[in-house]
Amino acid sequence: MTTKIQAVKGTREFYPEQMALRNFINDKVRAASQAFGYVEWDAPYIEPISLYAAKSGEELVKKQSFVFTDRGGDEVTLRPELTPSLARMIAAKQGELTFPVRWWSFGPFWRYEQPQRGRTREFFQWNIDLLGADSPEADAELIAVAATFLRSVGLTPERAAVSVNDRRLMVSQFDALGIPPEKRMDVSNLVDRRAKMDSDKWDAYALELGLTQSQLDGLKSILGNYDLWKESAELVRLFAALEALGVKEYVKFDPNIVRGLLYYTGTVFEAFETSGSVRRAILGGGRYDNLLADVGGQPLPAVGFAMGDVVIGIILQEAGLVPEFQPSPASVLVTMFDDSLRLQSLALSTELRKAGLDVMVYPEPVKLPKQFKYADKMKMKVAVTIGPDEASNGQVAVKNLGSGEQVLVSRQAAVDVIRKFL
Amino acid sequence: MTTKIQAVKGTREFYPEQMALRNFINDKVRAASQAFGYVEWDAPYIEPISLYAAKSGEELVKKQSFVFTDRGGDEVTLRPELTPSLARMIAAKQGELTFPVRWWSFGPFWRYEQPQRGRTREFFQWNIDLLGADSPEADAELIAVAATFLRSVGLTPERAAVSVNDRRLMVSQFDALGIPPEKRMDVSNLVDRRAKMDSDKWDAYALELGLTQSQLDGLKSILGNYDLWKESAELVRLFAALEALGVKEYVKFDPNIVRGLLYYTGTVFEAFETSGSVRRAILGGGRYDNLLADVGGQPLPAVGFAMGDVVIGIILQEAGLVPEFQPSPASVLVTMFDDSLRLQSLALSTELRKAGLDVMVYPEPVKLPKQFKYADKMKMKVAVTIGPDEASNGQVAVKNLGSGEQVLVSRQAAVDVIRKFL
Repeated sequence: MTTKIQAVKGTREFYPEQMALRNFINDKVRAASQAFGYVEWDAPYIEPISLYAAKSGEELVKKQSFVFTDRGGDEVTLRPELTPSLARMIAAKQGELTFPVRWWSFGPFWRYEQPQRGRTREFFQWNIDLLGADSPEADAELIAVAATFLRSVGLTPERAAVSVNDRRLMVSQFDALGIPPEKRMDVSNLVDRRAKMDSDKWDAYALELGLTQSQLDGLKSILGNYDLWKESAELVRLFAALEALGVKEYVKFDPNIVRGLLYYTGTVFEAFETSGSVRRAILGGGRYDNLLADVGGQPLPAVGFAMGDVVIGIILQEAGLVPEFQPSPASVLVTMFDDSLRLQSLALSTELRKAGLDVMVYPEPVKLPKQFKYADKMKMKVAVTIGPDEASNGQVAVKNLGSGEQVLVSRQAAVDVIRKFL
Repeated sequence: MTTKIQAVKGTREFYPEQMALRNFINDKVRAASQAFGYVEWDAPYIEPISLYAAKSGEELVKKQSFVFTDRGGDEVTLRPELTPSLARMIAAKQGELTFPVRWWSFGPFWRYEQPQRGRTREFFQWNIDLLGADSPEADAELIAVAATFLRSVGLTPERAAVSVNDRRLMVSQFDALGIPPEKRMDVSNLVDRRAKMDSDKWDAYALELGLTQSQLDGLKSILGNYDLWKESAELVRLFAALEALGVKEYVKFDPNIVRGLLYYTGTVFEAFETSGSVRRAILGGGRYDNLLADVGGQPLPAVGFAMGDVVIGIILQEAGLVPEFQPSPASVLVTMFDDSLRLQSLALSTELRKAGLDVMVYPEPVKLPKQFKYADKMKMKVAVTIGPDEASNGQVAVKNLGSGEQVLVSRQAAVDVIRKFL
């Protein structure tokens, strides 16, 4: 193997700096989830392909999944989404679980799509769901979790916002236009494509789908009516709840949000970067009350959303919101002076760790300037050295790598001095 | 989909309680790694099958991997181990990275083996490596990280210990017995199988491999000589370093540890539960100085180890060392008194979260006893209620769910009282 073998297309290598970004996102996801009482769970990463047959979109299963037959002959897939696993696990313990259930998860998913800006084939996704509660306040809680996350990573309402709609409101509007139930799916798709098409082509497409000119005009009027939420008792309660939850400034009604998937039954929402530099949604979700019954469980109301790590990662980097990368978790380097003092350095590092410090020992007694240069490159804050003089006097030399100040202190006092320099 | 679809054989569903154990292990892994200055990284979870062709054991690639052809025709595999990805990523940036490199990772791996106690097909593994340092002290550091982890999860030296050997010492002993270099691999495998075979059968197997009776006797004498390390300058230094690193009580020399993989070149070690209830190693690793050169990089000394989550998980559970499961990360429940007070409860929860508390709101105004029962089941510590009287008086009722004590306080004072009850 002397030729370099490349990583699989659409996967990412997480060098420590990329890993730090993933961890930053994961930590903020955890904090936002836990602030509202959600507990972490996870499903298998490979699942039977049949799990996705019922509810996932056909395109997802047939074209966008990594499907394979394992050595035992079973058809399995790298999970493309989490909700079918959630439905199975909830259904299997529906009699034992304490409802309402509040669960969140952050893990890997795979979709065989063309990689592009904001999209990889292997990605991480935050999923969060509230099961067993059916109210606008429950829906508002999920939107508040999303807004709390956006706020926690430093995205202001001017930079990112959650657009909200309700499928029940849209259906009632479609009905009022005389659009028959069997055309709802087509018209939803039409609405979904509006932002991506020329206005003329979109009009033509609408008429092709069988809308009359008057229905098309009515639809356009609906999609431009940002006060339409006032006609929905649910949305009126939802927005009141969002205000009580302190996130009103992050949320706006948008009749153009319909969501593509089959299973949404009520509130739907998506978060976007408002500048539009990344056109893909940051996160999206809504109420899906039919899923558990559809997989053979007892009917159970549910609301949730999902957020991939790729789009939010790009937005955070572009906005300069990613914390400065720390190449080492240790802030303290214990140098190694010479062969005879190796054990002294190791013993000192042990004392410092016992005091709760994260400490790196330079593993070889190379020339001290090289060791100090290494500490600088690793952005460490303190270097501690035991040379022959220090060793015979029971002292250590503690250097503040920021200021350059160096002090000789007794070994017992080292921890206190180091803490002052950190 | 009305029939229940089972998870794939050998995978695990992580309900919150199982997830808490995985997180407990992951957190302790992170703490032990960071205490020694190691930084987190990760590789793709799917990799080209060719990546494993050079150095992984043939059995691993041909029989134990989940291999498949993706939609683009590429042969890929769910990664069965991390080191080949590490070698590729290091080799690709060998000119840019600051050495020594200290990296750790915790993520999913897959092996198509028969599931059994201590073994699943989908598992998590801690990998930790120090690259660019070649000394017994560097080897000792990795063993100290392992021992620090064992100590941090509550496993005493009486319960778990690290067995250490050195392949260079064994080779010199094999040489002294007149065993030719081309037989070293066979004899290493022989040593590796000794604990799993009857003594008679093992003797016969040794002679079958072409050992003379006198070589067999010599080999047995070596494998019973627990002072043999004194003949190795490297091991003498290693044990001195382990003492300076404060973990001597967790480590012992064992000439029977050889490790199966091709690439170990010096120190090798494995940790075991001493009671032997689980026979599989908790973790294992060693020095592998040839890997980078073998994949086309510059030669680079390296030492590291890996630990799966399954064996250690069983041991921790059996030893009663897993912390009590907390069904909710929130300790505070805000109840919902009635329809008219929904917004008051939501607003109160917002105030408490702003003060840094993790807070759950009961999402529906069902009867209060049901809400309190829920809080008990979720092991929450405090319930806060705003009823009509409290609402009109600007007060809240704070109940300590442990003691049953309930106090009426002004809304401004609620945070302080709650903190006292936590």
